[in-house]
Amino acid sequence: MNHLQLFESIRQKRSFLCIGLDSEIEKIPSSLKKEKDPVFKFNKRIIDSTHKYAVAYKPNTAFYESGGISGWNSLESTVKYIRKKHPEIFIIADAKRGDIGNTSKMYAKAFLENLHFDAITVAPYMGEDSVTPFLSYPGKWVILLALTSNKGADDFQYHDEDGIKLFERVLTVSKKWGTVDNMMYVVGATRAEMISEIRKIVPDHFLLVPGVGAQGGSLAAVAKYGLNNKCGLLVNSSRGIIFADNSEKFDEVAAEKARELQMEMEGYLVEKNLI
Amino acid sequence: MNHLQLFESIRQKRSFLCIGLDSEIEKIPSSLKKEKDPVFKFNKRIIDSTHKYAVAYKPNTAFYESGGISGWNSLESTVKYIRKKHPEIFIIADAKRGDIGNTSKMYAKAFLENLHFDAITVAPYMGEDSVTPFLSYPGKWVILLALTSNKGADDFQYHDEDGIKLFERVLTVSKKWGTVDNMMYVVGATRAEMISEIRKIVPDHFLLVPGVGAQGGSLAAVAKYGLNNKCGLLVNSSRGIIFADNSEKFDEVAAEKARELQMEMEGYLVEKNLI
Repeated sequence: MNHLQLFESIRQKRSFLCIGLDSEIEKIPSSLKKEKDPVFKFNKRIIDSTHKYAVAYKPNTAFYESGGISGWNSLESTVKYIRKKHPEIFIIADAKRGDIGNTSKMYAKAFLENLHFDAITVAPYMGEDSVTPFLSYPGKWVILLALTSNKGADDFQYHDEDGIKLFERVLTVSKKWGTVDNMMYVVGATRAEMISEIRKIVPDHFLLVPGVGAQGGSLAAVAKYGLNNKCGLLVNSSRGIIFADNSEKFDEVAAEKARELQMEMEGYLVEKNLI
Repeated sequence: MNHLQLFESIRQKRSFLCIGLDSEIEKIPSSLKKEKDPVFKFNKRIIDSTHKYAVAYKPNTAFYESGGISGWNSLESTVKYIRKKHPEIFIIADAKRGDIGNTSKMYAKAFLENLHFDAITVAPYMGEDSVTPFLSYPGKWVILLALTSNKGADDFQYHDEDGIKLFERVLTVSKKWGTVDNMMYVVGATRAEMISEIRKIVPDHFLLVPGVGAQGGSLAAVAKYGLNNKCGLLVNSSRGIIFADNSEKFDEVAAEKARELQMEMEGYLVEKNLI
């Protein structure tokens, strides 16, 4: 999928919502725990009830790896299910990988080739040769960490060389490694005030924005500073949707929460004449 | 294991060698590929032949994840085998993880609790709250990326604020998060000339040093600049040992290569009056 196809999907769904599948087994409704592969069953019901409102899903690999082989199995089943039932969906492995070249090549194989994800999140600390192996798959994407949503972002990401902060250097340097069709950037919704600065460096790239909902970021602020003429945003909500309710009706409540976000997003898209 | 116990293990084995189990299935001898779980069989023979010369093994998770469920199974079997047969060995998950707090907590559970690794490599870009969840397991370690061995280290790690480079800031800030008993740092052997500078910031911490062998780093230089009065070094070789030969005698050749490094290390330990 290239960036124009992603924009087209956003226009059709009138939404730039990404739903994070941080499907922690301890938090899923107890009724599901009796079933075989409860994590996949949980994801399946979330996907069935929310796919109308979302253009992307983002399984977070930590929540699957913590289940060992059975967790890896749930991850595989989830990606296969989305691929088969909803081929229009953009699927992101939130994996935060990145290592020397021959190792990044193996991670790229694991997620982009074997598991058929469309995109993988990558940490920039190790530089170009840790990132480029992920860019060798046509139609697949790297989503590079730039400015993250957590408190610890302050520790190093603002390290300032002659007025250029580290996250700005990451954007400036790394945008030469790929194109607007295979690179996007993670920018936390909790840092919305920085998005207009970020847009000066990467006006045309898509941004993946976590931190709306449980982490307290504002969708209105993200849309105000982040939307470009191809939308250019995927805004993620995880816990705020998938764990909004833990009764037997969890999927209906998740759909309501997703629909609320979709409707708010539709408003911003209309306001910007993007739909 | 604390740092004194690790030093004692080094004294007993007269070695500070870590062997990287970057066990890429395409590179293992073809005779093993007919067996059930060839990657584990390969690792088992490498471990049986080299454990006398090594204090640590370091499976690189990318090479297991690229095999999906079967790869994860090989990883579990490998760690269990080392734990059972060689309980004195320090086992490192070379995973380069790091995410917001609730996600890092899940990675810590996956590797330090479920898989029983002693340590995990972590990327520092997301700061304190992405690292501290790994420090809540008594006797377990974070090995934080500081200055890596690859070319891409130049892209961001030398970003300089008022004379303080990013990797120096990572060392200075992060050493307050843990102690010499639960934190060490990755410093590439290809950057040996920087190790004396690094020792000024973290004189007492252990350093995990990759890049000797296939990546061209010098063990002599690493020992010269890096050894402290508790050794303070784990030097890793992966491909230079495990893929030194691909005939049926691969394990014997691996043992020879490991022994050569052990003997050279023994020389440096004697020279420094550490054994």
